[in-house]
Amino acid sequence: MSYFRFELIHQSKKSRARVGRIHTPHGIIDTPNFVGVGTNGALKALDPVLVDHIGLQLMFCNTYHLMLQPGTNVVKQAGGLHNFINRKMPIITDSGGFQVFSLAYGTVKDELKSRGQKTGNNLVLKTTEEGVLFRSYRDGTKILLTPETSIAAQKDLGADIIIPFDELPPYHIDPKKLINSLHRTHRWEKRSLEAHLKNPQNQAIYSVIHGGINKELRKESCEFLTKLPFDGHAIGGSMGKNRTEMIEMLQFMMPLLPEDKPNHLLGIGDLESIQPIVELGIDTFDSSHPTRCARHGLLFTTCGMVKIGHASNRALFKPVDEKCNCYTCKNFTRAYLHHLFKAAELSAYTLATIHNLHFMVQLMAEYRRKILDNEL
Amino acid sequence: MSYFRFELIHQSKKSRARVGRIHTPHGIIDTPNFVGVGTNGALKALDPVLVDHIGLQLMFCNTYHLMLQPGTNVVKQAGGLHNFINRKMPIITDSGGFQVFSLAYGTVKDELKSRGQKTGNNLVLKTTEEGVLFRSYRDGTKILLTPETSIAAQKDLGADIIIPFDELPPYHIDPKKLINSLHRTHRWEKRSLEAHLKNPQNQAIYSVIHGGINKELRKESCEFLTKLPFDGHAIGGSMGKNRTEMIEMLQFMMPLLPEDKPNHLLGIGDLESIQPIVELGIDTFDSSHPTRCARHGLLFTTCGMVKIGHASNRALFKPVDEKCNCYTCKNFTRAYLHHLFKAAELSAYTLATIHNLHFMVQLMAEYRRKILDNEL
Repeated sequence: MSYFRFELIHQSKKSRARVGRIHTPHGIIDTPNFVGVGTNGALKALDPVLVDHIGLQLMFCNTYHLMLQPGTNVVKQAGGLHNFINRKMPIITDSGGFQVFSLAYGTVKDELKSRGQKTGNNLVLKTTEEGVLFRSYRDGTKILLTPETSIAAQKDLGADIIIPFDELPPYHIDPKKLINSLHRTHRWEKRSLEAHLKNPQNQAIYSVIHGGINKELRKESCEFLTKLPFDGHAIGGSMGKNRTEMIEMLQFMMPLLPEDKPNHLLGIGDLESIQPIVELGIDTFDSSHPTRCARHGLLFTTCGMVKIGHASNRALFKPVDEKCNCYTCKNFTRAYLHHLFKAAELSAYTLATIHNLHFMVQLMAEYRRKILDNEL
Repeated sequence: MSYFRFELIHQSKKSRARVGRIHTPHGIIDTPNFVGVGTNGALKALDPVLVDHIGLQLMFCNTYHLMLQPGTNVVKQAGGLHNFINRKMPIITDSGGFQVFSLAYGTVKDELKSRGQKTGNNLVLKTTEEGVLFRSYRDGTKILLTPETSIAAQKDLGADIIIPFDELPPYHIDPKKLINSLHRTHRWEKRSLEAHLKNPQNQAIYSVIHGGINKELRKESCEFLTKLPFDGHAIGGSMGKNRTEMIEMLQFMMPLLPEDKPNHLLGIGDLESIQPIVELGIDTFDSSHPTRCARHGLLFTTCGMVKIGHASNRALFKPVDEKCNCYTCKNFTRAYLHHLFKAAELSAYTLATIHNLHFMVQLMAEYRRKILDNEL
């Protein structure tokens, strides 16, 4: 029997936005929710106990990074990722595919900048039907990542939700190649699912819908993957070169996903995107945006973004956000944080990250309240 | 009336070691005690509320750094350093002299390496009877630091204990110049004391005993400074090129200091030095050694130093020190800390610093117990 279960609590009367609960072996994820990124098994500048304390209900860890350091065998010996990092709440891991391929192709942004001429850094040695052979960026070791090895790695890590091995096609891809990539990804995802089902280990597995910027292919991907017994569906790959294109693609795709299963939007979570994707019915989405902003001194508040390094904060003896009751706002002023950033003190990054993460947790609770009240 | 008072609790029957209590406006400092260094108004990688929580009773902040960033006027506007950084427990500030001169001469170690040929980096423009003119390393501004401006800055900062303006003579100094430097330092300290006494602000002021590696001059300095109404005495300047020479000089000097006043050893606190200096009757000593070691992955334990980056910790699922009950040891394993250091995660530095600081607090409590039991 599986602990995993999605409970739909309320469907907004104003939009596709919905409130739900994902039940996992490590507790509940209230949806819609923001998923913090802790690539190496740690949100940057915060320890996992603190992250639990702030109330981040789902943490995203990267299999690729954990395979290379400390190695999934070490995590397995520790009794899984929760034990290894001492996190009590749910964790999701990806397949490693995204990182391997993004090393080769760069991000959409990189690609747009280089006009598709980026040839990669030679870390990816070969992609075949079997999988992808790449070199470790840490020590040059050759590693073969396949649907089966990715799932085996994710079994070692033992996250509550895992992701099948997929190919991230470059944004600039010839349409024929995109079809081939999609079909291979579908075969890889099916193999991943089969490997998972041999040993479910109380984990849930989400598919990853692909198809790039082509609606027909996105539709085909939804149809193919929703017929397989995945526990939920993630949306991956490029959906366009800007937010407008992404939103348009999501408008097209969301009705193609089953309402009784949770969905996840991969790698999107900048502040401006949140409301539109929530209104389209996205349940969870992960992004390193809030924590990265924090380390750059960009602090989120109910009255907009505060650039803490700005001179106006030099002698401002008030918290970052007077309405906020996070550890940082309860204990420290803008003036002190401004000073810590100017002095490049490490505690600046920690205090800023605590604030932004707390902000995200509160923001999502507020979105859930609005949906329950049919305000969204 | 002054809050400041030194209470001698017990004099060991085995050595000069003693247990006491320094009463300050921000509470008690149990002695002997380690003083953590928070140069910019923050111990590296920790926020001040956490430092209070760990129980570090005295924190050393550097006037020089705080003058340049954020400026003592900002700290004054905040209502002093305690308010600015939100620290409830005692703080000591230095005069700024040490940093200005060490920028010019480097440390004893630097000097020994360069065989006294080091000519400085031209940040010190002129030293006169009035004081020292130097350039800010941040923006090149010319700043005149004198006994009066140093004390004024320390009044703005409002620490519980302040330090008079002194000259740090280079280790390689011609004996005649050392005498001149010492006498000028004495005049500067007297001017500092006078400036302080015009507006004591409930602060205590310690003298700084100088005289370099010359016992006669050290004796002269003790005699001159202990006759002035300082609240305590700090020991500064180079006392030799290694620990043995330092200990020998302290053996000579300690009987020359009054027993009814607290003393402080400036800038010494590596683990091996602690027991000998405590046995010589040192009450407090500051050092960035434990926090710097932490950031380099060197963790203190009751069984010796642990190099957390060493491969032997890779899959060791035990705390750094099984006897330790710090936040880090209660929550995380060596394997996880090893991983965080290998992955260069910022939380590695925070967790390691919490541990080493907690270790120092416990270590000093244990020294006090031993002295009370005449074991030391």
